[in-house]
Amino acid sequence: MKEKVVIERLKSRGVEVEAIAEIVYNLQKPYYAKLKLEECRESVLTVLSKREVQYAIHTGIALDELAERNMLPEPLQSLLASDEPLYGVDETLALGITNVYGMIGLTSFGYLDKVKPGVIRVLNDDRAAIHVFLDDLIAGLAAAASARIAHSIKKADSI
Amino acid sequence: MKEKVVIERLKSRGVEVEAIAEIVYNLQKPYYAKLKLEECRESVLTVLSKREVQYAIHTGIALDELAERNMLPEPLQSLLASDEPLYGVDETLALGITNVYGMIGLTSFGYLDKVKPGVIRVLNDDRAAIHVFLDDLIAGLAAAASARIAHSIKKADSI
Amino acid sequence: MKEKVVIERLKSRGVEVEAIAEIVYNLQKPYYAKLKLEECRESVLTVLSKREVQYAIHTGIALDELAERNMLPEPLQSLLASDEPLYGVDETLALGITNVYGMIGLTSFGYLDKVKPGVIRVLNDDRAAIHVFLDDLIAGLAAAASARIAHSIKKADSI
Amino acid sequence: MKEKVVIERLKSRGVEVEAIAEIVYNLQKPYYAKLKLEECRESVLTVLSKREVQYAIHTGIALDELAERNMLPEPLQSLLASDEPLYGVDETLALGITNVYGMIGLTSFGYLDKVKPGVIRVLNDDRAAIHVFLDDLIAGLAAAASARIAHSIKKADSI
Repeated sequence: MKEKVVIERLKSRGVEVEAIAEIVYNLQKPYYAKLKLEECRESVLTVLSKREVQYAIHTGIALDELAERNMLPEPLQSLLASDEPLYGVDETLALGITNVYGMIGLTSFGYLDKVKPGVIRVLNDDRAAIHVFLDDLIAGLAAAASARIAHSIKKADSI
Repeated sequence: MKEKVVIERLKSRGVEVEAIAEIVYNLQKPYYAKLKLEECRESVLTVLSKREVQYAIHTGIALDELAERNMLPEPLQSLLASDEPLYGVDETLALGITNVYGMIGLTSFGYLDKVKPGVIRVLNDDRAAIHVFLDDLIAGLAAAASARIAHSIKKADSI
Repeated sequence: MKEKVVIERLKSRGVEVEAIAEIVYNLQKPYYAKLKLEECRESVLTVLSKREVQYAIHTGIALDELAERNMLPEPLQSLLASDEPLYGVDETLALGITNVYGMIGLTSFGYLDKVKPGVIRVLNDDRAAIHVFLDDLIAGLAAAASARIAHSIKKADSI
Repeated sequence: MKEKVVIERLKSRGVEVEAIAEIVYNLQKPYYAKLKLEECRESVLTVLSKREVQYAIHTGIALDELAERNMLPEPLQSLLASDEPLYGVDETLALGITNVYGMIGLTSFGYLDKVKPGVIRVLNDDRAAIHVFLDDLIAGLAAAASARIAHSIKKADSI
């Protein structure tokens, strides 16, 4: 499967790759002075090229959309409509993304999920739509892309 | 939320608590000679009383049912209809259940998911329905209930 | 095994239960206005009573101490002595603690591990000792105790 | 860090790359008729080239060796010397390896850890040494290498 499909899907839900790249950039800039936004964009695209990542995103967005259309069976519909804080399946799904780049991404995921910078905050505050899964998935994506940068810069260092 | 709702939901998808208890019993019997089926049933019920476990089950069953009714957006619909072996979100969700009783349940989950004893095999071979999530969730439930037994018997030993 | 042993062990490494309770209190206070420090202390103690949690702490502290005494085989000794940022085993171990209370603790763990409040910062800045594992373990403990509070208050609400 | 160091380390503990490749081969052969042992060997080597994997292995082997020499502080020394079944940190560490190739490896890990084929059984039955961590790490390695094969064959299919 091509990442083009998943990128379109994210766009249809209001999230541009650029917006995720910016979160990565702000997160990693303090550690790598020479970091460029373009590198962050490429890192996000590489994470998005992973099948397992695409599957998690398609699943989460489908659940958000079905909840918006009131099409989920109860009690799931009410759980998502009220963004029940102990729901947890959204974090579980996002963890599936972060895992792809090792435990290092975990810290960033938790941080982003709590602080909610950039588009994560926009999704979280959007009252016209349901983004129970999407905000966590974006945090997971940004965390994975950040972990990837940390790994690759480290590798370059050791040459 | 009461476990009654989730037990009804499992029943509506062809899974009785008894059938899960039997898997647990067969898995743990070699280690604990005095183990009774009734203890396994109680362990399954305790796992089912956890909110996080209920949420995972409701989410997975909803996805299975929506896939049966052809109501999921693409490419998710095709992924579930074909039971794509690299999908992985079903295992991720089931892991959320197993985690509740620590890493010990992990081994049992992997084993059950591969060997597919009892009702897990029945779900897996059912061609008239979609159980992409449910077979993994049942494996996760049985693994968690087994881990709980291992923990509680150990605790009784040390008194 | 009693939690007394693990509490003594933490104390010998400079961490009082009180200091962990304070992190939990500061993390959860914004969400639960009536929260008392004493409840946070009890939640930390309950997490510490779990065998799996005790095992993770004993393992991590042993590795820190052996690294201090220069007794680990290479390349492990150098990895711990330099606090290699991509080491990751410390986060993996801490995750084992957080998992006990479900995925909800994950977010808090990542946040605490990045922001490093209270005693976590003290451990991190201590140049006279090696705390590669301990700072992550404390973040994991505080995250688990916070998740436990979130779960129990929610439960009380629904009665 | 080169994988040469970690390969030597495994060899010094009685585990050849070949022996891990055989486990992978036996696990995946039923699904891919054309699979060659050489591909499994290469997959194991690729997994071993990951830094996070190397770190987990070095840490686990160090703990096994220190336990053999009776050099761990109590209660950790007794836990490892008796191979306490609820210890769990060994599985946690192995999970860190399996995670690198997504959730798919999880099932294989649990299965291998329970069935203990080939060198995993040899390690498990070795009464002259302590391999609390090593048998789980080898199961994790073989599971990760298997997941890698499943991913790469799938990718070749879709071209």
